[in-house]
Amino acid sequence: MNNIHIIGMGLMGGSFALAIRKAFPNIRLTGFDKNQQHMEESLYLGHIDEASETPQAEADIILLATPVDTLPDLAKNLLEKIGPTTLIVDLGSTKASLCQSLSSHPKRAQFLAGHPIAGTENAGPRAAKEDLLNGKVFIICEMEKTDLQLKGKAYELFEGLNLKLRFMDPDDHDLHLAYVSHLSHISSFMLGKTVIDKMKDERHILDMAGSGFASTVRLAKSSPEMWTPILQENREHVLEALGSYIARLQEMEKSMRESDFEAVFQQIKAVAPIRELLNQD
Amino acid sequence: MNNIHIIGMGLMGGSFALAIRKAFPNIRLTGFDKNQQHMEESLYLGHIDEASETPQAEADIILLATPVDTLPDLAKNLLEKIGPTTLIVDLGSTKASLCQSLSSHPKRAQFLAGHPIAGTENAGPRAAKEDLLNGKVFIICEMEKTDLQLKGKAYELFEGLNLKLRFMDPDDHDLHLAYVSHLSHISSFMLGKTVIDKMKDERHILDMAGSGFASTVRLAKSSPEMWTPILQENREHVLEALGSYIARLQEMEKSMRESDFEAVFQQIKAVAPIRELLNQD
Repeated sequence: MNNIHIIGMGLMGGSFALAIRKAFPNIRLTGFDKNQQHMEESLYLGHIDEASETPQAEADIILLATPVDTLPDLAKNLLEKIGPTTLIVDLGSTKASLCQSLSSHPKRAQFLAGHPIAGTENAGPRAAKEDLLNGKVFIICEMEKTDLQLKGKAYELFEGLNLKLRFMDPDDHDLHLAYVSHLSHISSFMLGKTVIDKMKDERHILDMAGSGFASTVRLAKSSPEMWTPILQENREHVLEALGSYIARLQEMEKSMRESDFEAVFQQIKAVAPIRELLNQD
Repeated sequence: MNNIHIIGMGLMGGSFALAIRKAFPNIRLTGFDKNQQHMEESLYLGHIDEASETPQAEADIILLATPVDTLPDLAKNLLEKIGPTTLIVDLGSTKASLCQSLSSHPKRAQFLAGHPIAGTENAGPRAAKEDLLNGKVFIICEMEKTDLQLKGKAYELFEGLNLKLRFMDPDDHDLHLAYVSHLSHISSFMLGKTVIDKMKDERHILDMAGSGFASTVRLAKSSPEMWTPILQENREHVLEALGSYIARLQEMEKSMRESDFEAVFQQIKAVAPIRELLNQD
């Protein structure tokens, strides 16, 4: 592997660049971002060797790290242009509609649908971290549709970055992510909004918000530009998860309104298995 | 100050004990907990010098670190028994009903209503940390009702523990905490419940739950024994905050159901000031 091209030089693109630099110092890295400032920062921060003026089609691997709504067209355009030894890998947070839109493409075998389970609430090249991906899960969908030899090249890259590969059906992926990621973001966004709307003119909140609040609203700092398309792409599953969440909050509200605190206790107690599920203490 | 007695040797009582040991090594610390195992662990871990068989009334300061529903009776019983140089300080997360229940007590001046804005999702003596309180805010309610000299003793303690004092009206305190703490806990509990109910038989969640989910449900690991009484004591304010939160989630749900993603974008974007409010990046 001699060169990798990254399209989208934000948190994810930049973190891949830094990790690749460390694990594969001989690979030449080029990048493209339609945001000129991101381009300049990526060069300045040393994420890439060269900034391209347009998305490039010549590389061993092309990583797509742009918002999910841009991926289908971007992938299709690039598939038209690439030669037979190039693999395109996307890193988007939703997989079903992208896989669907490429399913009958004649060059489908030169595409790999991926999703690294890693991120922070910050955006842009300066948010990139060399160790963001280290030890994290990388989900691959429809792996059987990707050419064996090209896939081998990608696995070599992922292994070098210490990613743990998991294989899933795209619909399954989107359903699960709706619950364990997309719903968390909505929960956090709206919690932040509730507090801001109530207290926008108060400074008390600065003092009284403990670490618990900070943890719960951390995701509310995520970018609307990235998250609106994710919610849009995964609309059905997210609506299911959100409806289920609202129903449980309403159950809690009803118990409190009726002053049935034995029921409140039982509802909270039922969450205890979360400790083991998350495998943390 | 020669001796401090702590009632309730869990996360908060234990953390106060450890911090006092460090800042005031000459103060003798005794403790009581109705849970015999907590008592033994507190001694074993060196949180206290001596375990008392019942709550003690003889100390310079008595710290009450038990669940909020136990505080009014506990404080009243102790006020009957203490001599004129003893101060009782509570550390409970709700303040209005406690202050109300003690408002006409003849020894009200020997009581200080406090609330350290610090904690973790873990419970019990082993969860205690020496630095949990360091640099944290300590809210005092109705400070004018506490005897000047006794108060001076408490301030000396708090200063030694590097706590930042803030003064508030009890109702104000409970209203604000409903938004920035109690609502966060409900949000987190019910998010955990939604995911558990959907995926209880699946192992996928372990892999797919990224750091965002872990952060958002961290508080869901909190103890139902501690949190049910807090929600009960602060029922009205929490119901207001919870109703407001549900309304915002329903607004998001409506926009998504109508596929109005411009509205979704605007709702998420409106949360941006949370970055500055929390004074973090």
